[in-house]
Amino acid sequence: MKIAIDAMGGDNAPSIVIEGIALALKKFSDFEAVIVGNETQLKPFLEEFKIADHDRIEVVHADEVVTMGEPSTIALRSKKNSSITVAATLVSKGKADAIVSAGHTGAAVAATTVKIRTMEGIERPAIATIMPARDGKFILCDAGANTDCKPQNLAQFAIMAEAYYKLMFGKEEPTIGLLSVGEEDAKGNDLTKETFKILSGMPINFIGNVEGNDMFEKKADIVVCDGFVGNVVLKNSEGLAKTIMFWLKRSFTKKIIRKIGALLAKGAFEDLKKMSDKNEYGGAPLLGLKKPCIIGHGSSNAVAIMNAIRVAREFLNADVNDKISKRITESNISID
Amino acid sequence: MKIAIDAMGGDNAPSIVIEGIALALKKFSDFEAVIVGNETQLKPFLEEFKIADHDRIEVVHADEVVTMGEPSTIALRSKKNSSITVAATLVSKGKADAIVSAGHTGAAVAATTVKIRTMEGIERPAIATIMPARDGKFILCDAGANTDCKPQNLAQFAIMAEAYYKLMFGKEEPTIGLLSVGEEDAKGNDLTKETFKILSGMPINFIGNVEGNDMFEKKADIVVCDGFVGNVVLKNSEGLAKTIMFWLKRSFTKKIIRKIGALLAKGAFEDLKKMSDKNEYGGAPLLGLKKPCIIGHGSSNAVAIMNAIRVAREFLNADVNDKISKRITESNISID
Repeated sequence: MKIAIDAMGGDNAPSIVIEGIALALKKFSDFEAVIVGNETQLKPFLEEFKIADHDRIEVVHADEVVTMGEPSTIALRSKKNSSITVAATLVSKGKADAIVSAGHTGAAVAATTVKIRTMEGIERPAIATIMPARDGKFILCDAGANTDCKPQNLAQFAIMAEAYYKLMFGKEEPTIGLLSVGEEDAKGNDLTKETFKILSGMPINFIGNVEGNDMFEKKADIVVCDGFVGNVVLKNSEGLAKTIMFWLKRSFTKKIIRKIGALLAKGAFEDLKKMSDKNEYGGAPLLGLKKPCIIGHGSSNAVAIMNAIRVAREFLNADVNDKISKRITESNISID
Repeated sequence: MKIAIDAMGGDNAPSIVIEGIALALKKFSDFEAVIVGNETQLKPFLEEFKIADHDRIEVVHADEVVTMGEPSTIALRSKKNSSITVAATLVSKGKADAIVSAGHTGAAVAATTVKIRTMEGIERPAIATIMPARDGKFILCDAGANTDCKPQNLAQFAIMAEAYYKLMFGKEEPTIGLLSVGEEDAKGNDLTKETFKILSGMPINFIGNVEGNDMFEKKADIVVCDGFVGNVVLKNSEGLAKTIMFWLKRSFTKKIIRKIGALLAKGAFEDLKKMSDKNEYGGAPLLGLKKPCIIGHGSSNAVAIMNAIRVAREFLNADVNDKISKRITESNISID
């Protein structure tokens, strides 16, 4: 089992990526790391984290990187020798079985979709993100890969997210909700009303529409939506959480007595930070490709990279793609 | 100046609605309240709040109410004698100049749109909601009136929200952002890409795309989107804020030392609550109708009702509709 890792992707690459790979090599004995990046830049870190001579690594040189401000398409147009494009190409050629990147999300989606391609019966890949609910977690899918979708795409996202939920949380029939603006089936926009009908006829645990506030109360294990809405929700949630913490901090530092209170209750704030820890699951998979693809958050730390590798391994070990294929066939969703 | 008030709408109607009207009558001498609802039920509250014999009230009987679980269309179909429909009819017949309701939002939108109708040149009315940013406030429009929109609709929302922003915050050229999934003009879905082009050519202070996280940093005074996305964002924000407060409370009560800390810092939590006070502006206007229509939150208190009446008066006093008309003509947005 070979996992191609984009060593140049992420805010703190390549240092923390190499550190994460070193952690994963220690923890998991069943995979080989194909490390893609600028050899000269990687060398000191491979030495620092003592894996330069490890028997389960291989370094593949790529002399370019897609940086955060660049358009997604650059990975396929002018920067064909970027680490993400080279890693995706390795997978497409059968030289690796899965891919991990904490770099530019759009570039990763573009490069993997074009190089690795979608599984048979899947028209569009989708990003599945694990989000914290009041109690437990839920999966939001699509969190940003597709800005314009057909109802059939959303139906496929439901099947793909179901397989991912089973893998991560071991629940056999996770509940699936459709993100909309009212609970009744007649509520929503043209896309969700049509999707509602398709989901109702599928062999899944569909519980109907869920609203923006229902998600955090975990009315459904999986919340399905198009990637435009999903990305807005994801970023809205991140932005609001940050803003509330900002307000709290500002208010806590206004008066001495509050400062003392905040000091005593320090642990509570640390608990809160843990609730939205992005490193625990290593990132979000791009579901529906022929090979597993895990996209880490730009701010991934070494533990996040190790977890992304862990999840990629689990995808392969559990044959998640094979399971999705079977469920897609069973569900008989026709794409025009 | 006569303002029709749906006395039966809201979680605590008619009690708090009558209390709010009494407050408004004391504070503002320039309006008459046309109180619409079940006369028998209203009587004791009119007496309790000492306005039964007030010379600036008139009670118009309506024997039905649209309740929260009912479909929006019921206001126009089977419950034609509901308080919201009767109030909207009064406005349409010139017997009142504006309308205030804290009842069923969908029913209020349906009844007012059909009875009062949109202004010339406006195809669809839109809900404008004031939301708290890190510092200051921003307006989200449309927050839920239209689930499927054309680019021209969004362009009109921008003009209408601009007039409302000027009225509420006195800023002459508020900045306008388009809610999307990336900053570049080529980012977004089909709707936002087309809208971007139209907004760029309009005589407004358009600053380009804003993302879900940018809103709370107040990159723009006004954030324009379709009502499906707007409603999801609004409810997502309410749900997440509630969830974060739940987590904090749970975590603060875990240990004695934290409980003491929370007690000392009590004021900080009260500050936080004030940040998202929904009663301050009395609700959200449904912009674009021939007469001002203010929709209060279901959980409105008496101060919120008073503020909704205050805002309705300000709409009339400042001729906001007239200003919107002129700006629509200047902007020359063609609706196919």
